[in-house]
Amino acid sequence: MSSRAALPSDPAARPLRVVSIGGGTGQPNLICALRALPCAIEAIVAMADDGRSTGILRERSGVLPPGDVRKCLSALASDPGAPLARAFAHRFGYLDNHALGNLVLAALCEEGATFTEAVCACEQLLDCVGRVHPSTTDDVHLIGRTVDGRVVRGQAALSHGSCALETVWLDSKARAHAPAVAAIMAADLVVLGPGSLFTSIIPNLLVDGIATALRATPAMKAFICPKVDMQGETWGMDGDECLAALERHGMAGAIDIAVFHRSADAAGSATRTFRALVGRLAEPIASPSDAANLDGGPSRTSVPARHDAFPFRDVALTGDAERRVRARVPWVAVRDFSCARSRSIHDPSALGACILEVMNRCRSRRR
Amino acid sequence: MSSRAALPSDPAARPLRVVSIGGGTGQPNLICALRALPCAIEAIVAMADDGRSTGILRERSGVLPPGDVRKCLSALASDPGAPLARAFAHRFGYLDNHALGNLVLAALCEEGATFTEAVCACEQLLDCVGRVHPSTTDDVHLIGRTVDGRVVRGQAALSHGSCALETVWLDSKARAHAPAVAAIMAADLVVLGPGSLFTSIIPNLLVDGIATALRATPAMKAFICPKVDMQGETWGMDGDECLAALERHGMAGAIDIAVFHRSADAAGSATRTFRALVGRLAEPIASPSDAANLDGGPSRTSVPARHDAFPFRDVALTGDAERRVRARVPWVAVRDFSCARSRSIHDPSALGACILEVMNRCRSRRR
Repeated sequence: MSSRAALPSDPAARPLRVVSIGGGTGQPNLICALRALPCAIEAIVAMADDGRSTGILRERSGVLPPGDVRKCLSALASDPGAPLARAFAHRFGYLDNHALGNLVLAALCEEGATFTEAVCACEQLLDCVGRVHPSTTDDVHLIGRTVDGRVVRGQAALSHGSCALETVWLDSKARAHAPAVAAIMAADLVVLGPGSLFTSIIPNLLVDGIATALRATPAMKAFICPKVDMQGETWGMDGDECLAALERHGMAGAIDIAVFHRSADAAGSATRTFRALVGRLAEPIASPSDAANLDGGPSRTSVPARHDAFPFRDVALTGDAERRVRARVPWVAVRDFSCARSRSIHDPSALGACILEVMNRCRSRRR
Repeated sequence: MSSRAALPSDPAARPLRVVSIGGGTGQPNLICALRALPCAIEAIVAMADDGRSTGILRERSGVLPPGDVRKCLSALASDPGAPLARAFAHRFGYLDNHALGNLVLAALCEEGATFTEAVCACEQLLDCVGRVHPSTTDDVHLIGRTVDGRVVRGQAALSHGSCALETVWLDSKARAHAPAVAAIMAADLVVLGPGSLFTSIIPNLLVDGIATALRATPAMKAFICPKVDMQGETWGMDGDECLAALERHGMAGAIDIAVFHRSADAAGSATRTFRALVGRLAEPIASPSDAANLDGGPSRTSVPARHDAFPFRDVALTGDAERRVRARVPWVAVRDFSCARSRSIHDPSALGACILEVMNRCRSRRR
């Protein structure tokens, strides 16, 4: 019998089941890192997006938000360089900047498929090496309150606001998509993030059943903190405040591992929340120009024109903040995720190395 | 050895190689009929279309005309009811009425694929049961002269003009796509039509190498005459005039079989060409309303608003006209192709039955 055939009878040797919870560009970045590791991948994707191509399609087609799901499907394509995989990710500059994959999902749904069936059809089209689940198939929008007390409606507006956020909630009740719950319950490791904290990670937790499953599952839960406070939603927040926000939204006491970025040549650390409110920053700290290139094309909210006016910097974890985090989370890892390509994205190979450490902790616990 | 395995050693029993030459909606209709018959199917598609979604994409994307190729790909999908096959044919009413398949072809080309590679990727996506070849991969537009002497530019304008056409030509030199020539040379049967005579069938013959191959191939050549003179381009023309137009464009003496429609309860016959010029028709004969539904959405030419003003009727073959055709073509078949779904489309099962007769003639000649 070959060693490959022997795998199923040796539970300790089987690939770990890793579930990614997120959305935006952080989640496909994590998937790319996971693909190099010995694990089965399932992605649970936030479903409250209303920006850009996704927002236009939600309005005109009535389709559930396709964009973040599409990015995960692309990240899971068996051959990302194959013509159909490249076309799937292609954006039409002359057609509202729609990505073809978004239009494929919309067309499938307009032809009578459920959103879940549409996602399955795309998994087949791209011959995906993992699964993608919407966290809910209910039609929801995000609402939030900023730390200075204003209520803002819509994910796109929330993610490019003029002030950090304190709380977000959904505009209507939403039930978890059953396969997403099943994936969490069967997982060895659940990774929350990296990604926009309030608009990619937390919206998953607002769906009835997801946070409950995360507290119930025997899987280890790792939180990967955003690397920079680029999004308006987290401006000025440090690592402790990011973790606290996650805890406020259903994850109190449930995080086993927290991962933070610290550049080897870090010049300074982020201020705490309120110092980052509009107009209170003394000087620009970093240009958001690399951020603007992450997802192609202009945002369709009314806010993006102002976005350029705001700097961003690394989310820090130092001194008292680090002590507070270590008091609440069993394992805290601080690593250098500096990425030559983008200030805001975790370097995929550094992220992969860190996830491998996390996976080894899962394995040793399982044995 | 099973009878299936024995087939290759019995040339007389192998499926016939049938090549369809056309475009528009007539060619996929023929393909649907061919699929029920024991034959291998290859479609050679006209590449001068510039109307609707196709015209917009040619202008904005620079892609070669995708629409007619896309319809043939859909007709060849192994499971036309599969979600991806249905989505491929889906039109977005809120996006210039683009068909998703047109956008897939455009995205593939914008991502660096050649048009031929893009077509192959779509054959794979739809798991097609036959091949689709553009007649040329050169970028060409159609020009034509009406029987009353006006020169009209562009296929869309030509197909919805106010007068029958006499001659069409391409705006620049175009070479035949090699696999199209190879398919013609290897064919047992080549079927020209059904479809719009001047804008779907003849544009294939204007490409350097196609008409030459058609005259050189040992395959039998069948012409299926348009059923109605719905398109402005053939208004008032009878079957003899349609065949003569095909002969003027490179097919003189090359047609072995000509197939015409005659309804069992035909009320009358078409006049000859000049009587059908605008304003000379005494009364409307048939409503074009069913024609308007054939391809979804409005035309983008400046002409379609006037289209409603024009009636159409069956292309007839009677009396002297029939005698003239029989003098030039070895086998003339007149059948009833009346279709409950549409006045302008050949009934697929009647078309299939007639093609089977034609195929049997090919077989008996081969034996």
